[in-house]
Amino acid sequence: MITVLTGGTGGAKFVWGLAQIVPPEDLTVILNTGDDLTWWGLHVSPDLDSVMYALAGKLSSDRGWGYDDDSFRCLERMRNLGGESWFQLGDLDLATHLRRTQLLDLGKTLTEATAELCRAMNVKQRLLPMSNDPMRTIVVTPDGDLTFQEYFVRERWKPTVADVKFQGEEAAATSPGVLESIVRADLVLIAPSNPITSIGPILAVPGVRDALRCTTAQVAAVSPIVGGGAVTGPAGEMLKMRAFSVSPAGVADAYRDFLDVLIADSQDESNRQEIESKKVQAAFTNTIMKSDDDKIALAKFALAAVAREAAR
Amino acid sequence: MITVLTGGTGGAKFVWGLAQIVPPEDLTVILNTGDDLTWWGLHVSPDLDSVMYALAGKLSSDRGWGYDDDSFRCLERMRNLGGESWFQLGDLDLATHLRRTQLLDLGKTLTEATAELCRAMNVKQRLLPMSNDPMRTIVVTPDGDLTFQEYFVRERWKPTVADVKFQGEEAAATSPGVLESIVRADLVLIAPSNPITSIGPILAVPGVRDALRCTTAQVAAVSPIVGGGAVTGPAGEMLKMRAFSVSPAGVADAYRDFLDVLIADSQDESNRQEIESKKVQAAFTNTIMKSDDDKIALAKFALAAVAREAAR
Repeated sequence: MITVLTGGTGGAKFVWGLAQIVPPEDLTVILNTGDDLTWWGLHVSPDLDSVMYALAGKLSSDRGWGYDDDSFRCLERMRNLGGESWFQLGDLDLATHLRRTQLLDLGKTLTEATAELCRAMNVKQRLLPMSNDPMRTIVVTPDGDLTFQEYFVRERWKPTVADVKFQGEEAAATSPGVLESIVRADLVLIAPSNPITSIGPILAVPGVRDALRCTTAQVAAVSPIVGGGAVTGPAGEMLKMRAFSVSPAGVADAYRDFLDVLIADSQDESNRQEIESKKVQAAFTNTIMKSDDDKIALAKFALAAVAREAAR
Repeated sequence: MITVLTGGTGGAKFVWGLAQIVPPEDLTVILNTGDDLTWWGLHVSPDLDSVMYALAGKLSSDRGWGYDDDSFRCLERMRNLGGESWFQLGDLDLATHLRRTQLLDLGKTLTEATAELCRAMNVKQRLLPMSNDPMRTIVVTPDGDLTFQEYFVRERWKPTVADVKFQGEEAAATSPGVLESIVRADLVLIAPSNPITSIGPILAVPGVRDALRCTTAQVAAVSPIVGGGAVTGPAGEMLKMRAFSVSPAGVADAYRDFLDVLIADSQDESNRQEIESKKVQAAFTNTIMKSDDDKIALAKFALAAVAREAAR
């Protein structure tokens, strides 16, 4: 049994790679819902949808987000009608959010709504939102607080980040299955996602960090930092803000209380000593996922690296 | 000042014709909202939208309903996701309902939301929903009650109609401007719409029928019944159910307590005596609106017929 913690677009690629080599019933994916938003009155779960679409073979490969071969006709008219338009929902994508919102309005939890969407899209892996409670990632900037999507999409991650906090953190509970899937896994993988704003919210849900510390499973992460910077997005700046170095060693540091193995890019082999000084095993390979083969190769490498470590 | 009561697709054509010959600031349109529905969690106002789209030059002429040149990609995916799909919302149309719902959620009334949508669509005539309260047309059938759209769209008006009632009728109030626009008009026109389910709900909002009886304006209607049947839809069956004859005279009967002039189709000239026996003046012309010229000619004829009657 493999459990993956993920958020963001790199995570969706990594999970897709795993899904090509692991039977669907053996794969549980715990998803960041800290950057969920209410958009046009609809409940949108960007990270969850990226993984769901990827596993359904419907993630747009052009854009890296949203539904494949989508159009933006409704969005264009919304703009003309005076509606907000900085968050782009395609016509096909829109159906996901309409249906999810409908299911939530019927009283279903986000976990149940996700299961129903996955069934309809023929996604057989188990996708678990980190929480069914509204816990939201807030990016604190010198000009005020922004929701994650305001910061990331509307402001194109240009504002200086003073802090990241999680609104509703104290009241949030893990959704059913999350803690069990960590504690009972044979292997826990942390996708190459932003440690602060993609994985950070999951770790902040009460109980998750403890479960990662207590699980007898090996816990391995793939570094989203390659060659001194993030592959995409603001992970570098976020690590710096939290006083971690912008390197695989910084990622290992962020996860040091529960991490067994860090998989980093071959160009960062010089980091090995620093990573291992944190009692985290280091393994190096190509981590940049350009092609489907890259994604599968990285997934295979991750499984092999952890198996080696477990056998030591 | 001209005030039109309308619902349905014939009404949208008639209002478009009027708008070509009357300055926009002189035209107020009171719209049936009895067949509004909540669809995919959104507030949909089919009759209101048909008129708004017609006046914006965006009503689909192929379909007679919905937005011009629309696509149905979101609908198709909703179907695949297990959502209901018998009521067809196009991708462009969807923006209207998303935006309206958003404005209503912000606390605006349907009147205010309609004004904002009209501004954005450059519709300068005044469009007034009959009520801002949820008054809904219910079609009573031997197999139970149906909402109007369930009866009309989902069941393709096949069920036997035992009765038509208006849920929330007692609690509904006319929206701001409705009664004034009837009482203060120089002319009130009733579009060629179903007297029971398109005009009927407007007449059932407390105060409207009294205002029509009291107004000093001439009140004229265009018969939706031509040659012994409805031009489209179930108006014939509905009239029969209410014990009116399925003829222009039956329409005059349905409106006899406030109607001054009935405009009917030339093929129904034999109805003149029966209409006029109800103290309603009859005027005959081509009322079938196939082309834009037909729509304009009917509008011109209506204004002239009423002017003649007023001068008597």
